Amino acid sequence: MQQDLDDDFARRLVQVADAVEALLDSLLSLQAGQGELVRPDWLIKAMRYASLGGGKRLRPFLLVESARLFGAADAADTGVLRAACALELLHCYSLVHDDLPAMDDDDLRRGRPTVHKAYDEATAILAGDALLTYAFDVMADEATHPDPAVRIALVAGLARAAGPGGMAGGQMLDLMAERALEPLGRHDIETLQAMKTGALLRYAAEAGAILGHADAGQFAALSAYGKALGAAFQIADDILDEQGDEAAMGKRIAKDAGRNKATLVSLLGIPEAIALRDRLVQDAESALHGFGARAEILIEAARFVANRDR
Amino acid sequence: MQQDLDDDFARRLVQVADAVEALLDSLLSLQAGQGELVRPDWLIKAMRYASLGGGKRLRPFLLVESARLFGAADAADTGVLRAACALELLHCYSLVHDDLPAMDDDDLRRGRPTVHKAYDEATAILAGDALLTYAFDVMADEATHPDPAVRIALVAGLARAAGPGGMAGGQMLDLMAERALEPLGRHDIETLQAMKTGALLRYAAEAGAILGHADAGQFAALSAYGKALGAAFQIADDILDEQGDEAAMGKRIAKDAGRNKATLVSLLGIPEAIALRDRLVQDAESALHGFGARAEILIEAARFVANRDR
Repeated sequence: MQQDLDDDFARRLVQVADAVEALLDSLLSLQAGQGELVRPDWLIKAMRYASLGGGKRLRPFLLVESARLFGAADAADTGVLRAACALELLHCYSLVHDDLPAMDDDDLRRGRPTVHKAYDEATAILAGDALLTYAFDVMADEATHPDPAVRIALVAGLARAAGPGGMAGGQMLDLMAERALEPLGRHDIETLQAMKTGALLRYAAEAGAILGHADAGQFAALSAYGKALGAAFQIADDILDEQGDEAAMGKRIAKDAGRNKATLVSLLGIPEAIALRDRLVQDAESALHGFGARAEILIEAARFVANRDR
Repeated sequence: MQQDLDDDFARRLVQVADAVEALLDSLLSLQAGQGELVRPDWLIKAMRYASLGGGKRLRPFLLVESARLFGAADAADTGVLRAACALELLHCYSLVHDDLPAMDDDDLRRGRPTVHKAYDEATAILAGDALLTYAFDVMADEATHPDPAVRIALVAGLARAAGPGGMAGGQMLDLMAERALEPLGRHDIETLQAMKTGALLRYAAEAGAILGHADAGQFAALSAYGKALGAAFQIADDILDEQGDEAAMGKRIAKDAGRNKATLVSLLGIPEAIALRDRLVQDAESALHGFGARAEILIEAARFVANRDR
């Protein structure tokens, strides 16, 4: 599906990913910053390994493009990019911890050994902890935005999206579902996914709105967009897990069926899941209706997320 | 030594601990908050197990009393208590992760099974992640302080103290020291400890200063106090590890020697370590000289930390 993607979208996606990579590289310097004593080499290297050189940088892209919708930023705006990198640091922490032996026990991520394989388990736990903590450091720093009210709104939203009532809670529900005797029903699966993967994608769009000084209605529109996109993303992910190409994905697939993973694809079957996914993309589009043609790239992003092949 | 502690100090310590316990109990409710979908029972119970019913609440106490030094709070001030609880949540996360099998592999904490023993390893990792994230949520919420500039300063300081150049980095250095062929020298041990345990204790005093709208000189004084207290705390801890009573401590002790743990006690010997500890208490006292008699409780706290028997 990727060949018929809008060229402008594809170009912007690469632009933002490159800018994010460069800023992450600089943020994850071995040099201790103000108020830090030492940045241990081994830890920083593991954090860099977990964060650099991979991924579509989808969450940063959504954040940057949502901010751009309000004229708040072009991709070169350092403050907006910092917020995008903070979000990506937090996302990377979640991958490192999810891959741990006690969690999903994955050896491969983005085609490379996972952090606990490339380093060791203690380092992977600590690198995840440090990435999570550093995400808040980067977000809270005044270089991200001059207005403390904007920064604290970004921090509060990120913590809410990633915490026990968001991503971390979703991962817990997912682990519990694996252990459960009966498969989850549709409502429970949708809640789980809205927390585990949905919360951070939704936050990406909301954070752009915060940076763009959106009014309440605009914020709600971006939130609805992010929510629908997040749900579509997860269905696409589950379809890929059933049908995808392991080499292209760069990680072990078809693992969900063997592990009692709760997915809408296993509950509804592929055709109905695809129909639901496409309705969600339409929901994402409708949410941005009021922004007119300016929202084209975000709408393209929702289509991309739903139809990606990796 | 505890019998000759100042009565006022002892009473305040218990008062703050009780208030912290009550507020943590309420913050760790099973009821989902605004912007949260669900708080999974199992996760919240593990977070509660990790956070409630134990500990001297030393960091919250230092935060509250430092704020009180500036007339910013009595122990009943909910905002200051929220900041204190956020700090304690973060401290509790660090204990949960430090105890993990891949890290210090401890079965006992505060006289009870550690979280990965009472629950399981995946839950302990997630509960730690969720406690860390929730700490920032609680700190960033406007209920903590009406001024966004104060809240963002609290968040930024906490992230810096707990991150790769602070607590998490210190834990990494500690694990590396265990694996090293040669024991660390004095400077490296002091750096490690200033990060691993010192950074959060120092932050406790600094956070009180932030809440108290301290000027630069006052902030520096509290910071110097917290730094000296933190260093004294760690020496006391290491002495207890060599000499303490396992039943009174509620955790396994005398474990450092067998594991190549880097401590000043093993490097300097007990008598010299005690002399250093007492000099650090004097440094803590001197740092607060400008506050006169108002600083009595904080000074008592430094003495208490240095001379505690558990």
